[in-house]
Amino acid sequence: MSFLNETHDPALQSWVTSANVPDNGFPIQNLPYGVFREKGGHHDFRVGVAIGDKVLDLAALALLSPWTGPAGEALQACDAQTLNKLMALSPEHWSALRLALSKALREGSDLQGKLEPLLHDRAAIEHNLPAQIGDYTDFYISVHHATAVGKQFRPDNPLLPNYKWVPIGYHGRASTIGVSGQAFPRPVGQTRPAEDGAAPGFGPSQRLDYELELGIFLGQGNQHGQRIDIREAESHVFGFCILNDWSARDLQAWEYQPLGPFLAKNFASTISPWVVTLEALAPFRQPFQRAAEDPQPLPYLTSDENREHGAFDVELEVLLTTEASRSQGAQPASLSRSNFRDAYWSAAQLVTHHSVNGCKLQPGDLLGTGTLSGPSQGEEGSLLEITGNGRNPIKLPWGEERTFLQDNDEVILRARCTKPGYPVISLGECAGTVLPAIPV
Amino acid sequence: MSFLNETHDPALQSWVTSANVPDNGFPIQNLPYGVFREKGGHHDFRVGVAIGDKVLDLAALALLSPWTGPAGEALQACDAQTLNKLMALSPEHWSALRLALSKALREGSDLQGKLEPLLHDRAAIEHNLPAQIGDYTDFYISVHHATAVGKQFRPDNPLLPNYKWVPIGYHGRASTIGVSGQAFPRPVGQTRPAEDGAAPGFGPSQRLDYELELGIFLGQGNQHGQRIDIREAESHVFGFCILNDWSARDLQAWEYQPLGPFLAKNFASTISPWVVTLEALAPFRQPFQRAAEDPQPLPYLTSDENREHGAFDVELEVLLTTEASRSQGAQPASLSRSNFRDAYWSAAQLVTHHSVNGCKLQPGDLLGTGTLSGPSQGEEGSLLEITGNGRNPIKLPWGEERTFLQDNDEVILRARCTKPGYPVISLGECAGTVLPAIPV
Repeated sequence: MSFLNETHDPALQSWVTSANVPDNGFPIQNLPYGVFREKGGHHDFRVGVAIGDKVLDLAALALLSPWTGPAGEALQACDAQTLNKLMALSPEHWSALRLALSKALREGSDLQGKLEPLLHDRAAIEHNLPAQIGDYTDFYISVHHATAVGKQFRPDNPLLPNYKWVPIGYHGRASTIGVSGQAFPRPVGQTRPAEDGAAPGFGPSQRLDYELELGIFLGQGNQHGQRIDIREAESHVFGFCILNDWSARDLQAWEYQPLGPFLAKNFASTISPWVVTLEALAPFRQPFQRAAEDPQPLPYLTSDENREHGAFDVELEVLLTTEASRSQGAQPASLSRSNFRDAYWSAAQLVTHHSVNGCKLQPGDLLGTGTLSGPSQGEEGSLLEITGNGRNPIKLPWGEERTFLQDNDEVILRARCTKPGYPVISLGECAGTVLPAIPV
Repeated sequence: MSFLNETHDPALQSWVTSANVPDNGFPIQNLPYGVFREKGGHHDFRVGVAIGDKVLDLAALALLSPWTGPAGEALQACDAQTLNKLMALSPEHWSALRLALSKALREGSDLQGKLEPLLHDRAAIEHNLPAQIGDYTDFYISVHHATAVGKQFRPDNPLLPNYKWVPIGYHGRASTIGVSGQAFPRPVGQTRPAEDGAAPGFGPSQRLDYELELGIFLGQGNQHGQRIDIREAESHVFGFCILNDWSARDLQAWEYQPLGPFLAKNFASTISPWVVTLEALAPFRQPFQRAAEDPQPLPYLTSDENREHGAFDVELEVLLTTEASRSQGAQPASLSRSNFRDAYWSAAQLVTHHSVNGCKLQPGDLLGTGTLSGPSQGEEGSLLEITGNGRNPIKLPWGEERTFLQDNDEVILRARCTKPGYPVISLGECAGTVLPAIPV
């Protein structure tokens, strides 16, 4: 089975000429969706698609009704302030709209004249969350991350016995998910007492960290009580974004037993503004296979499709700027790089596992992958891992050191897909800034 | 400070005569809000207030605009399909609407003629969720429950060191919260392997349980990043309902480490349809105090107000019917009784703790108390506790036994407030039924 079609032709060029610049990340083969408005403007947020350094206003295009059939229906669903209506449609609808947009934005398209007035400079827009997120679930799919974290607590036996059988996940907080550019005060809370039986500490977190993740936006949902078969799971996935699951390690260490993370995570989570569709990522599919020493997943988490092409080659990077680096005009420091293909569970497996008990998934729900650390040094997805839980500070190129995040630090996550002979497909950027704590 | 006003006068009688029947639970001193429509009807769900065996259609009343000022503004917020708009207003608004409704429904009211056509028989309506629930958080505030559960794992040291300092909570799933009458298939999932290293089990849960809880519906929210002071916390509480946090103990035991409950809980949660306001519960306030041997809460969780009247005397009961009992026409079996006043943390403390890190709370958010078990035998809020994790089956009056729930079992939770010289204030009923699992 090939997932490729004419929208993936690497030779395609757009009449939006910035989309043809090598490595710009938003070529006509990408076409990610987001929600935008003019910066500081008074118009409503609305749905758009990114192309080069422009965004095409799909809410405005919908009023022109250029298409009929599934593409037309999908475009009408874009006459909205969020992507939820588009997400609620079927893969056939998503695919038809992608093809129609690809044709309309190609060099020589009859529609160029109609579309040009609907383009905005991406430098002049601001974003809202792409969707109204009903429920947010965060998983833990990097065995490298789970092992590194486990080592902090159980050096001889870092992985719990369920890890290689259960895609471990927990519910996160939807209300504090913000879009790239989010800034939030350092969280305050309780920390472990200095000695057993003493009163806990209380104050601003001293071990504030980021987590490098991808977000998976769900498309069509399921009926409450109905399971989603692994072979159908990807038809419920609309696309991917980048996710920073900010974490207060000291709050987490004291509060998390027995019910898991709560205030250590729910003060803020940041996502990138553009949702790159599953179809746009098709050229970067890879086999998803277990190592010989690992158990095969249970049958409900197994399919030929998943094994043959359930993984995605998505390159990830963490960068940091600080008050000092910005005042010196220094470039952001690259802290680590990793790849989504090293995850232990696939997106399809997460969807199927989440619904195996009949749990109802809905369009616009967000699944976090969990920290995407790789197997090697330099591939750690959090400061907890890079610094060995704060024991080994990192030196930044401009002379500062960090164990955990300081006030006014800005973390920038980036993700992109590359392969020879194909344009770079960018997932954009997810930036967020830690503000000083509000005084207690 | 007295929380009582003329709406709490026990002598008040309504021209809706069923509201004056002793112990009917919905007297003019109660006035809980909910969302309803005619059973099987095609009208939209809309906001109403219960009075005796009737419900008054507040969406219809809003069209008559009988009041100005805060009561009028609050009534206009009831011209809606959920309570969210009313919840988003202030305690002054809620109080003004309650007073206006109390006056309008009293014997001798001028408005009787206008209101009578807007009454519906409660026996002839169906309910929807009272609010669109943005985020659902479940706490763990019964020290008796936490101790009983801890004993299953750590007989000598059942309470974890954080319990008496941190109001332990975790995020639950909003999408599968249903209103009383909810029926759902028995969840399917992975269970602990028979021996270490073997493949886990997979199939319908064999240890399905209920949890007896109250739900706290939040009113006005906070700005992201801003803490809610303990002295202001109750102004963010709209009211209470009953909550059944269905739990699959065998799924939970295998999946819950290290990130807490997930599929073991998120297949369904059921709430009662009527939200009883904080003001309606004012006559049942009690001091909220720590035992001499317990640590005093940290200052951010401490206030004179909370100590003097932060607890509520709410009587809770669990009842069970089965296929056999219903076919025999037997009465539901009472499994246990407990009281909300025995909880270790107050509603105000939950709100303040939840926002201490800047987490954004929103109108319509639901907080679960966690299982409300009491200190004595007969006060266990779950089968896990009653049966000692399945070791000691209970005998039902009609001859059956239970360790955990069987297919077609119906669990009915009830809650009410009573005191001499005051009408019974009912929180209504929360019923739910376990259907057979969908075959794997």
